[in-house]
Amino acid sequence: MIYFNCDYMAGAHPEVLEALCDTNLIKSVGYGFDSFTSEARAVILKACGLEEGEVFFLQGGTQTNKTVIDRLLSRNDGVVCCESGHINVHEAGAIEADGHKVMALAGNNGKLDASALERYMEDFYRDETNEHMVRPAMVYISHPTEYGTLYIRNELEAIRDVCRKYSMPLYVDGARLAYGLAAEVTDVSLRDIAEIADVFYIGGTKCGALFGEAVVTRHAHLLPRFMSVMKLHGALLAKGRLLGVQFLALFKDDLYLRIGLHADRLAMKLKEGMRERGYRIFIDSPTNQQFFILPNSLIDKLSESVGFELWGPRGENESIVRFVTDWSTTEEDIISLLGLCSYPS
Amino acid sequence: MIYFNCDYMAGAHPEVLEALCDTNLIKSVGYGFDSFTSEARAVILKACGLEEGEVFFLQGGTQTNKTVIDRLLSRNDGVVCCESGHINVHEAGAIEADGHKVMALAGNNGKLDASALERYMEDFYRDETNEHMVRPAMVYISHPTEYGTLYIRNELEAIRDVCRKYSMPLYVDGARLAYGLAAEVTDVSLRDIAEIADVFYIGGTKCGALFGEAVVTRHAHLLPRFMSVMKLHGALLAKGRLLGVQFLALFKDDLYLRIGLHADRLAMKLKEGMRERGYRIFIDSPTNQQFFILPNSLIDKLSESVGFELWGPRGENESIVRFVTDWSTTEEDIISLLGLCSYPS
Amino acid sequence: MIYFNCDYMAGAHPEVLEALCDTNLIKSVGYGFDSFTSEARAVILKACGLEEGEVFFLQGGTQTNKTVIDRLLSRNDGVVCCESGHINVHEAGAIEADGHKVMALAGNNGKLDASALERYMEDFYRDETNEHMVRPAMVYISHPTEYGTLYIRNELEAIRDVCRKYSMPLYVDGARLAYGLAAEVTDVSLRDIAEIADVFYIGGTKCGALFGEAVVTRHAHLLPRFMSVMKLHGALLAKGRLLGVQFLALFKDDLYLRIGLHADRLAMKLKEGMRERGYRIFIDSPTNQQFFILPNSLIDKLSESVGFELWGPRGENESIVRFVTDWSTTEEDIISLLGLCSYPS
Amino acid sequence: MIYFNCDYMAGAHPEVLEALCDTNLIKSVGYGFDSFTSEARAVILKACGLEEGEVFFLQGGTQTNKTVIDRLLSRNDGVVCCESGHINVHEAGAIEADGHKVMALAGNNGKLDASALERYMEDFYRDETNEHMVRPAMVYISHPTEYGTLYIRNELEAIRDVCRKYSMPLYVDGARLAYGLAAEVTDVSLRDIAEIADVFYIGGTKCGALFGEAVVTRHAHLLPRFMSVMKLHGALLAKGRLLGVQFLALFKDDLYLRIGLHADRLAMKLKEGMRERGYRIFIDSPTNQQFFILPNSLIDKLSESVGFELWGPRGENESIVRFVTDWSTTEEDIISLLGLCSYPS
Repeated sequence: MIYFNCDYMAGAHPEVLEALCDTNLIKSVGYGFDSFTSEARAVILKACGLEEGEVFFLQGGTQTNKTVIDRLLSRNDGVVCCESGHINVHEAGAIEADGHKVMALAGNNGKLDASALERYMEDFYRDETNEHMVRPAMVYISHPTEYGTLYIRNELEAIRDVCRKYSMPLYVDGARLAYGLAAEVTDVSLRDIAEIADVFYIGGTKCGALFGEAVVTRHAHLLPRFMSVMKLHGALLAKGRLLGVQFLALFKDDLYLRIGLHADRLAMKLKEGMRERGYRIFIDSPTNQQFFILPNSLIDKLSESVGFELWGPRGENESIVRFVTDWSTTEEDIISLLGLCSYPS
Repeated sequence: MIYFNCDYMAGAHPEVLEALCDTNLIKSVGYGFDSFTSEARAVILKACGLEEGEVFFLQGGTQTNKTVIDRLLSRNDGVVCCESGHINVHEAGAIEADGHKVMALAGNNGKLDASALERYMEDFYRDETNEHMVRPAMVYISHPTEYGTLYIRNELEAIRDVCRKYSMPLYVDGARLAYGLAAEVTDVSLRDIAEIADVFYIGGTKCGALFGEAVVTRHAHLLPRFMSVMKLHGALLAKGRLLGVQFLALFKDDLYLRIGLHADRLAMKLKEGMRERGYRIFIDSPTNQQFFILPNSLIDKLSESVGFELWGPRGENESIVRFVTDWSTTEEDIISLLGLCSYPS
Repeated sequence: MIYFNCDYMAGAHPEVLEALCDTNLIKSVGYGFDSFTSEARAVILKACGLEEGEVFFLQGGTQTNKTVIDRLLSRNDGVVCCESGHINVHEAGAIEADGHKVMALAGNNGKLDASALERYMEDFYRDETNEHMVRPAMVYISHPTEYGTLYIRNELEAIRDVCRKYSMPLYVDGARLAYGLAAEVTDVSLRDIAEIADVFYIGGTKCGALFGEAVVTRHAHLLPRFMSVMKLHGALLAKGRLLGVQFLALFKDDLYLRIGLHADRLAMKLKEGMRERGYRIFIDSPTNQQFFILPNSLIDKLSESVGFELWGPRGENESIVRFVTDWSTTEEDIISLLGLCSYPS
Repeated sequence: MIYFNCDYMAGAHPEVLEALCDTNLIKSVGYGFDSFTSEARAVILKACGLEEGEVFFLQGGTQTNKTVIDRLLSRNDGVVCCESGHINVHEAGAIEADGHKVMALAGNNGKLDASALERYMEDFYRDETNEHMVRPAMVYISHPTEYGTLYIRNELEAIRDVCRKYSMPLYVDGARLAYGLAAEVTDVSLRDIAEIADVFYIGGTKCGALFGEAVVTRHAHLLPRFMSVMKLHGALLAKGRLLGVQFLALFKDDLYLRIGLHADRLAMKLKEGMRERGYRIFIDSPTNQQFFILPNSLIDKLSESVGFELWGPRGENESIVRFVTDWSTTEEDIISLLGLCSYPS
């Protein structure tokens, strides 16, 4: 079997695992007060081009979204996102469980549109009965999106401008940030994200770590008493240094970028190969998630030896599928997969 | 420096880490649907003497307590525990954050007393205005307790009997269960816990794992749709197999028990040595946490080369301190510590 | 000025107020344990044709929706409704504040469609990753809807059947129930509602009471320990008897129906008059809320001496307006309003 | 029967009811945007000696406490109060239901002690692990307390000073404020409360209104977007003017004070009579709640013709009872009660 189900099927990138092994017997205090974590904070701030700011380490994406959003929102405030936003669909109500409404706008291939956002905000503030309504008070976007697509810098700035106009923090979910930063076509760097987003996170779990996400903000005052809020959400790891150690490894010798480049390159190779073979691309993603519309007969055949996900319900004759690459995907995996996809007759 | 601050200062026990390394490149599906996790479930149920039941893996103690309690309680239900209970003091309001009152009773060296519990329940149900009050609807105890003390089997059964009488589930926090099971004086086995508790967890984080806790119940119906509730709490690990792999290692060749025996043996050696040197024992703990009343002069001297915790505020002449052992503590560590504790004049 | 802004602009119907005055000096125990409340419960159950069941009295619509939904749903469960549902738009996030997702489906003039609901449920249960999603676990509809429209009995039964198939309680918001029951065209009686809905409420605030809503269920087990949950929501009135007294008055000599008949008759007279004058009807409502598309010039003129609401944003040339009648509306009010609406040139 | 069970057994004081009747047919906009409410706000601010500030009207005590506390607290913040505080005991977990821990300190006849509060705060801020603990972030006291006792001005100022030192708002529950202001011995006026408390409420339900409480603050910024938070809690009355009308009546011709004076005078008469008859006073309350220790034989005899409450469990030979007076209590009621209390043999 070869696996393209998702980007969290293997353990950690060997360089990350090695760092964990090398430091295993060193004793340090808990909860992120150790020196590994301090060092990782400094390294990340530097990589983000931030002279000041805060970095917090959590364990997974839903946990990070839930904890950050709960800290940023007050009572009767909601978070605006795309209908396809992870927080709106696949987090089992984690945001609502903390009392916050997720306010979903129609998106564009997973992307929020600045002008749609502006119209939504205008409508809210024009409505004189808005005391009876949830106030849209922050914006959530993902980069890359759930469809593998990327914002361009101008689009991010336009969203940021609407956010500023309405005094809403902009939060960027970077669960797969490595694949966005490494995309050949992108004009958005880590420093851009750090400058445009009020709060964002650098995804580890899906980008080579065993687990872990790094929340970054240049406005420390936006996340007051955040460690205590993490604790309250069960998100404060006892052996906090495990996160520091892993992110130090990810940011050493550009490993984070290398992981992104590797996965994206193989994803492009797959897309190119499928296009050559005449298959339709469902969404033209420049990152490690690739979506195709395949005949059900091919899907059935592939299922015997390839792991991947059906994207939505099975159609009558053809269906949408998703293939995901990561650091553990090999050239051979791509060649094998393409080999199984004979040219349609 | 030698460290006795807590039992989560080093990484994982080498056998656990080895298991993670050995399986690192194997790909598996996420969220605990992998074969490592299935196997770990079976191994744990067997060790618990349970023919049926459920096992769920989470990442840390507060997260586990919060998620289990939130699942067990309904609106207007509260959880009864000791004043010193971890959920009442050191979880930053994690239980209340989900809407549940923590109802704390005076304890006895960290232990809940069955007759105090019974009186509390009688008072509640005798009060005709109890519609205006939170209903005590489950009981939380820890074994070992936050003071390192242990229940005897009779005490657990007595608490269980009160719980049954009032139809309340009994939940046992086993964050340090290894040290309880391995204590020389205990008459409580893992099977006893599994039989007496409605839900409990086998602590990994403080007992040799990198991180991870295994929730066990013989009544699957008590935790309906629990994976979804875990997800909602940000407690569902993407690479779920990391937890399965670690618990398989902990339950292979009795590693979990070995870890407990090692730490308890060194803790007893420390206690004996301190007693011989004439120091007062604050609580006579049979497990890996040891509490002494030491002169401030000695505390100051030790602080130069030993890590440990002050337990409560510093007194005028003497204070309470805690020393904790774990798998990474060595005989030499104990000998060095005792060497520093010269006989008081 | 004549007022058609809403159905809660005056105090109570004189017969209701008289009942409050008549009983003012009588002393009774609090929280609904008094004899007025008991009697009102019996009268309501009888009017609903229920031999057994429960009736609870709360103070307002949002409070009632919030408290009932919070009791019916468990963690990770959501409530399905129309996009225009009151709980989705105008309750300031009251449902989400208790941790529950509102899952809004496109509606049809304020009505939920049974087949759309069924498709939604099928999609949820077909999705193998639904552990990551909020479970749709109850259905909310309003009758009359927020647009004044009414379900026919067949439509309610079809929704009920989908609910049964998926074991979801059906909850009917009857904030304006009087106007639905009294509508000339309806085939839905109070007994029908009581038989089809699992839980519903009979609106008082908008139907002649000073304030108050009566929650009715034929399944007492669906709302366990409900008074305590009411208390927790701040929804348990100290002088509970005020609600009993008012509902006794509303159900004496068919007052509730008389109020509905009066308001509906005047609403029909208004609709007919406007139609005769050539104005377009926005939604053909058979109840006390009437929606018209009027030229802005007429709207401006009316605003000088008539109270009413703009429904949505003001258009370029014409806009949608809502006129509402109630027990305090008079024939003269309608004649005056129609008099102001000269035939458009 | 004569009734001393509580101060909410009758309807409204006749002057309040009359005001409701007089205004019943007047139409006004909803949700407190009407002119009655505006006028009541102005009258209350003036009575409080406040040139600026905000007044909000809610419906009941628990609802008011819940909504104010939820607005004042952020995540991971708790509210400090007495063990006997209403929010800690008799509100069914309403505060915790919103995610906030109630942190109860031992009290002194229902009163919080400033020095106990200061010690508690010092302990919290001295503990270096306080990130793992709920932060005490506001203080709740009641005046009169649940035991009928009153703070003197110095005590309130001392509590206020601790609150300021730790930047915590001080919130005063004035459910029975009329009886406190009218007490013969008090040195605390309404203006004092308004000056010392950051937020407080003037109780209506227990002091002559049908229902209703007026929240007052001189710091409008402490309760941002409060109407929306009220809506979210189901605490925004549709016919908001009912609250404005009642409070206008309560503050007209000193009615609020007259109600307090009447009830307190009769309560003192009762206390004096019982003392003369040799009965022990349980708590020496200067307000409308009186607590005595009576022989069970007398309690049984009284129960035949007098309504009152047992305070706590029935003792072997004697028990504590509570008698409450209000505007509807008459001289004759007191004389009858005392007549039944023959001198003990």
